Amino acid sequence: MSPKTRMIEVRENILKQNDIAARALRQRFQDAEVFVVSMVSSPGAGKTALLEKILTVLRAQFRVAALVGDLATENDAVRLARSRAPVRQIITGTVCHLEAAMVQKALEEWKLNELDFLFIENVGNLVCPSSYDLGEDLRLVLMSVTEGEDKPLKYPTIFNSADVALVTKMDLAAAVEFDSVTTHCNIQAVRPGMAVFDVSAKSDSGMEEFLNFLRSRRAVRATATTRE
Amino acid sequence: MSPKTRMIEVRENILKQNDIAARALRQRFQDAEVFVVSMVSSPGAGKTALLEKILTVLRAQFRVAALVGDLATENDAVRLARSRAPVRQIITGTVCHLEAAMVQKALEEWKLNELDFLFIENVGNLVCPSSYDLGEDLRLVLMSVTEGEDKPLKYPTIFNSADVALVTKMDLAAAVEFDSVTTHCNIQAVRPGMAVFDVSAKSDSGMEEFLNFLRSRRAVRATATTRE
Repeated sequence: MSPKTRMIEVRENILKQNDIAARALRQRFQDAEVFVVSMVSSPGAGKTALLEKILTVLRAQFRVAALVGDLATENDAVRLARSRAPVRQIITGTVCHLEAAMVQKALEEWKLNELDFLFIENVGNLVCPSSYDLGEDLRLVLMSVTEGEDKPLKYPTIFNSADVALVTKMDLAAAVEFDSVTTHCNIQAVRPGMAVFDVSAKSDSGMEEFLNFLRSRRAVRATATTRE
Repeated sequence: MSPKTRMIEVRENILKQNDIAARALRQRFQDAEVFVVSMVSSPGAGKTALLEKILTVLRAQFRVAALVGDLATENDAVRLARSRAPVRQIITGTVCHLEAAMVQKALEEWKLNELDFLFIENVGNLVCPSSYDLGEDLRLVLMSVTEGEDKPLKYPTIFNSADVALVTKMDLAAAVEFDSVTTHCNIQAVRPGMAVFDVSAKSDSGMEEFLNFLRSRRAVRATATTRE
């Protein structure tokens, strides 16, 4: 067997194991009635800034917490601690994505039924995290206006694996001559019907609409769970 | 053996095979006296814009060509064709990085001794390309001012695997309140002594200095080869 074929086989096994762990996580999240939102994007697309804003605003009304993944440093956990929400850093070392088992381990001692929202910020990588289910209810893919309008076309898998797209750093749109229409067309070309929010964590533009979307998605999930 | 252990073993085999292919490439580049520069960065850090500028300027004086890697689309090759330099796109599918064998295949029919410079633009990914030697003389890592000053600390491996760092989109530095001193300190903390250029492909700021660096590095390599 060629190393390439073996690599594919071993990778499929890992993905299968990840799916099993993700299924267990999803059940645990559902039993605890916590709504779980994960975030994927390129490095520097603004996941942490957006998450700090989300935690700060939602904290007034909900019990919120976050896990943040990075290869190295606890910088993001330190930044997010300013929101006063509980935050735990997952250091992946050289692993280019979060896996369900890492999330399981990080949450081992957490009482999830004391939470309404849990956010999981993935490693900054627009390729590899797409294959790993983390048991989340909602996966957000972020792209900033500074990255260029063609990113959905060039990284279609991650847009396909996500539920919602966020176009971030809208406060810089004019400075970079951002073409919003082309971007939205590119997202719809890759994933027809995808919900898209244009936001700026700096100017707050679009944030209330997006936060209302999160609140309503959680409410719908809560109703569905009660009915079961 | 656990899937994780097997994954590591199989990955090591692939890296070994890549190193063998990269060694053959390096010899081929040296024999042809072509200076090969590769570029790695996050998606949207400005690799293609910078490369278009480099090709356009150097073309007046040198025989230049480029290979560009992406998961999907031939967009970059189309953009770079405007420079009138020969450009070939490598579509990786779901593979998150370029490998030496992909470069070998793309260059099969090329007469490399008719080139002075060959540029290789990797897939946008600040993690995975770091492990794959492409036989290049010089590896550039790009980070744009919009990504945040902490990127070298959060993605140390790729900064360690590169020879030169480029801070791109300097025309946006004021708009994003970019902290240049902190960024340079973070780069030096991860890789002491690394050469760093602050550039903007849009305003041309810093470009001449960087291009002179490339010209001089090529000249030094050419002299060393002649002496052998």
